[in-house]
Amino acid sequence: MEPKVGVVTGSKSDLKVMEKCCEVLNQYGIKNELKVLSAHRTPDEATAFAVNARESGIDLIVAGAGMAAHLAGVVASRTTLPVIGVPLKSGDLGGMDALLSTVQMPPGIPVATVAVDGAKNAAHLAAQILSLKYPELEAKIMEQRNDMKKNVLS
Amino acid sequence: MEPKVGVVTGSKSDLKVMEKCCEVLNQYGIKNELKVLSAHRTPDEATAFAVNARESGIDLIVAGAGMAAHLAGVVASRTTLPVIGVPLKSGDLGGMDALLSTVQMPPGIPVATVAVDGAKNAAHLAAQILSLKYPELEAKIMEQRNDMKKNVLS
Amino acid sequence: MEPKVGVVTGSKSDLKVMEKCCEVLNQYGIKNELKVLSAHRTPDEATAFAVNARESGIDLIVAGAGMAAHLAGVVASRTTLPVIGVPLKSGDLGGMDALLSTVQMPPGIPVATVAVDGAKNAAHLAAQILSLKYPELEAKIMEQRNDMKKNVLS
Amino acid sequence: MEPKVGVVTGSKSDLKVMEKCCEVLNQYGIKNELKVLSAHRTPDEATAFAVNARESGIDLIVAGAGMAAHLAGVVASRTTLPVIGVPLKSGDLGGMDALLSTVQMPPGIPVATVAVDGAKNAAHLAAQILSLKYPELEAKIMEQRNDMKKNVLS
Amino acid sequence: MEPKVGVVTGSKSDLKVMEKCCEVLNQYGIKNELKVLSAHRTPDEATAFAVNARESGIDLIVAGAGMAAHLAGVVASRTTLPVIGVPLKSGDLGGMDALLSTVQMPPGIPVATVAVDGAKNAAHLAAQILSLKYPELEAKIMEQRNDMKKNVLS
Amino acid sequence: MEPKVGVVTGSKSDLKVMEKCCEVLNQYGIKNELKVLSAHRTPDEATAFAVNARESGIDLIVAGAGMAAHLAGVVASRTTLPVIGVPLKSGDLGGMDALLSTVQMPPGIPVATVAVDGAKNAAHLAAQILSLKYPELEAKIMEQRNDMKKNVLS
Amino acid sequence: MEPKVGVVTGSKSDLKVMEKCCEVLNQYGIKNELKVLSAHRTPDEATAFAVNARESGIDLIVAGAGMAAHLAGVVASRTTLPVIGVPLKSGDLGGMDALLSTVQMPPGIPVATVAVDGAKNAAHLAAQILSLKYPELEAKIMEQRNDMKKNVLS
Amino acid sequence: MEPKVGVVTGSKSDLKVMEKCCEVLNQYGIKNELKVLSAHRTPDEATAFAVNARESGIDLIVAGAGMAAHLAGVVASRTTLPVIGVPLKSGDLGGMDALLSTVQMPPGIPVATVAVDGAKNAAHLAAQILSLKYPELEAKIMEQRNDMKKNVLS
Repeated sequence: MEPKVGVVTGSKSDLKVMEKCCEVLNQYGIKNELKVLSAHRTPDEATAFAVNARESGIDLIVAGAGMAAHLAGVVASRTTLPVIGVPLKSGDLGGMDALLSTVQMPPGIPVATVAVDGAKNAAHLAAQILSLKYPELEAKIMEQRNDMKKNVLS
Repeated sequence: MEPKVGVVTGSKSDLKVMEKCCEVLNQYGIKNELKVLSAHRTPDEATAFAVNARESGIDLIVAGAGMAAHLAGVVASRTTLPVIGVPLKSGDLGGMDALLSTVQMPPGIPVATVAVDGAKNAAHLAAQILSLKYPELEAKIMEQRNDMKKNVLS
Repeated sequence: MEPKVGVVTGSKSDLKVMEKCCEVLNQYGIKNELKVLSAHRTPDEATAFAVNARESGIDLIVAGAGMAAHLAGVVASRTTLPVIGVPLKSGDLGGMDALLSTVQMPPGIPVATVAVDGAKNAAHLAAQILSLKYPELEAKIMEQRNDMKKNVLS
Repeated sequence: MEPKVGVVTGSKSDLKVMEKCCEVLNQYGIKNELKVLSAHRTPDEATAFAVNARESGIDLIVAGAGMAAHLAGVVASRTTLPVIGVPLKSGDLGGMDALLSTVQMPPGIPVATVAVDGAKNAAHLAAQILSLKYPELEAKIMEQRNDMKKNVLS
Repeated sequence: MEPKVGVVTGSKSDLKVMEKCCEVLNQYGIKNELKVLSAHRTPDEATAFAVNARESGIDLIVAGAGMAAHLAGVVASRTTLPVIGVPLKSGDLGGMDALLSTVQMPPGIPVATVAVDGAKNAAHLAAQILSLKYPELEAKIMEQRNDMKKNVLS
Repeated sequence: MEPKVGVVTGSKSDLKVMEKCCEVLNQYGIKNELKVLSAHRTPDEATAFAVNARESGIDLIVAGAGMAAHLAGVVASRTTLPVIGVPLKSGDLGGMDALLSTVQMPPGIPVATVAVDGAKNAAHLAAQILSLKYPELEAKIMEQRNDMKKNVLS
Repeated sequence: MEPKVGVVTGSKSDLKVMEKCCEVLNQYGIKNELKVLSAHRTPDEATAFAVNARESGIDLIVAGAGMAAHLAGVVASRTTLPVIGVPLKSGDLGGMDALLSTVQMPPGIPVATVAVDGAKNAAHLAAQILSLKYPELEAKIMEQRNDMKKNVLS
Repeated sequence: MEPKVGVVTGSKSDLKVMEKCCEVLNQYGIKNELKVLSAHRTPDEATAFAVNARESGIDLIVAGAGMAAHLAGVVASRTTLPVIGVPLKSGDLGGMDALLSTVQMPPGIPVATVAVDGAKNAAHLAAQILSLKYPELEAKIMEQRNDMKKNVLS
């Protein structure tokens, strides 16, 4: 059994930002797949992805979207897996629209939200969450933190 | 054939605001039904409502929701009927979260958004839209405008 | 009888954005004409346009404007046709000024507001609204949605 | 010849705030009349008021409105008299909607905007503007400033 | 081995809101303890809590704070456990200060942020995260979702 | 006797924007002089300018400033002439800081505020205000409006 | 020689908030006097206060003001003493206007800004600044911090 | 004994902005050292720096950070020296996140906040604060102000 993250994003134009999430997941040795799935343009596919995620071996979902960013919330409503939301800046409002659309979820269906365009942090958060189930990740997180520390102090 | 509007709202606590929409629809003589359907807590029911709306004789949907207000967008993604979104103030951010979550829809799936807590205006907008198909509504809109005018000038 | 949309914008500098609305309307086969009409600099012409819109065969008006974007509201006050407002980013405030000026209409005179710079979505919304009167549009909307879906999933 | 200010407000519910403007104008001995005129619900009357203002002896117009506050701009587009705009708080967004709708006027048709709910300051500004034509007002402004000063220092 | 959540909050005045988190955790049968620990007034104690959390059997930390809400970030910098941040409204800015201070974490040290005053959702999110390690929680989450659904539809 | 406007700006870096105000004033044939005077770095000179403005034949002052834009308010506190404030975008907050610092004046000392970077509109507003005293300006304003109208409609 | 702080506030209505600053200063044994001085309504007195502050034995100035809060900046422009600014909530914008008007000072004339309505923190900051000159204050700050710590942990 | 300022910044990418602070400190002849220390990635080092600052002869700390800018607050919680916070723009929200994270400190642990990206003003403020202990700085501040004044008036 190995950790696996499903990464989805609402638009092809967001792929470049979300690929940074996958790169960091790869550094942790966490299996991942990146898909474009729109809450609004492919609601059936987004729903199916979320409904089947647990069965297909996914432990956790990262969803990035811009503007009225509904993707993370829509996915979260269809799975009991933890969902990390990445608000993406697109358009003119600096990502504030995506941030509020992602983080202000109503009671019952939370989305674990990271910073605007925080694709990398979504991967770090995923690693921390997955370390509960896959304790071997803890050492990798410590290692990554030491690298960061060395980099800051150098 | 008569005009019919489906009014949905994301939470029982929003019923009071959205009932104002129904009252105005009633004044226009537009048939309507108000349902509580949450994009996040009852995604299947919300989807079914939207998918079946046209067949069940609904011409137009009004969806009110607060916070990360996904309801209008989720409904809009499942129907080709026009969807009017009413951002509702709930919580601490003055309704700005609901406004941006409702209006900033990505290309392809629009939501016709009215003001924060603008449940009445959703009904007026519905009447104007429905007047394209039901021309008898035009006279009622004119009448309502004259009443407003008299009220302002009195 | 065929569907017809009047598209107006407050400034020549906004033509480029609003032409995208006309392009999408053309894809739907919806007749349209784009005019520059300023609520403030040509109030008589803007009023005349709105007052005469229904008689000249227009079914629906799309109005795009930036800054203190009054155009959609001014037009809406002079017609019972549905009016879609497109807040345009111009100047330094990211379009938030145009968004609030367009969407926060007082009771009685609604404007169906789409996203900041959402000219394309104004056209999609117009198609959905017009499909009530011109049912042949429904198939075209479905087709466009299928194209979007294919594009996302490809 | 004596100074005269036309005070208009978009809704009866705003009368209480705008009456403070009239009270201050009265203290300056500036003739004034307060009317409810809505840019959206009584566009013809608002237009007629603005068009006829100069002929009816009005020197300056004060317009207060809330939400998507178009009244000052609509009036300003129909007269060459100076127009002072008072953004009024109404609804949930703290008056930011009315402020941006009033102050962010496009080039050519300015509105002299004061603070949110700044009805009193509109009157003080009116007195300063009118003092150019009616120099006797200058002494009254000085007197009012001395009173303020004494009040602060007491 | 049983799931355990450490709940910390920056001020006694926030206890009432954060107790709702503990109530929901209790409903899930998740062990929890609520402590007042300020990032600024008790930095040593907050650090010690975070450093020792894993050893003391804590699986996950929930941190609620208002204004310049640093608590979640400070705790996150000292542990590799997942940290959920709850921005609390306190003061005049509607909780926007706490939201941005909590969610906009720099790369490397993420905080899983929920809505302003979203103490209940922090508990739901905790349950979802903990279900990776404690699979028996999944059934309880499903049960809670069914209850919510029934409640919405009733 | 001829109309004269004093234009001041808080920084040399703002001269380029404020020169547009002078250009429009020149088109109206309104005498003007542009000075750099900082409320904070040259408080004595700014005060002296305001105190002596009326005596030196100035009818009206236009003050442009960015960030915590105090210049218009500081000048307004020292003269009974009308003061038009132009909030200037400089720095990272889109001019919102300058807008609020200029428009939100406390009771008693108003500043007639125009849009962010609205230097041209400050000149148009100045012309409208000065037309009360110099009626020959009215024809020029009408002419300018006709030019604008032709430009929009061409 | 003993430490002395001049506390000024722009309006009598703000006295209640600013008295909290004096109470905390008293706890530190720091001499202080609280005056109402308006940047706009009593500019001469505000200027005189700032110009004479150093000579009258004042070490540091705390200035609280609301709306377009110019008082701290105006005082800072007239003295080389450190000036702490307290943005006060008054009116409808949550204190954001006062915050930006106080903190966004242009290069050369800084204001040490604390939180909205942060009158107490202004006193704590004053004590820390004064401890450079009056080292005996350091022990009192430590004592106050210990009290805070005990209070949090109790 | 000579004045000494410790300047810290949360990320190498912020060094360029914060070096401007050191340049101005150098102009005042104030000894300073610039270090990269992250509140989140190097919490131990940031804590040690703050704890030891007074002993190592530092009189005052300037801390610059972006996004959820915790550095100034974290440092302030560990020292009784005055701490000046410089909110840095980084990312998409115009620095508003860093401003609120820095200025909205809770009661007891203040941060003297300057404008977004106000690194220079942090140095000017430092000089004013240090002039309490090192009176020879007053003349240099006066000199710098005279230079600024000449520069504005030239």
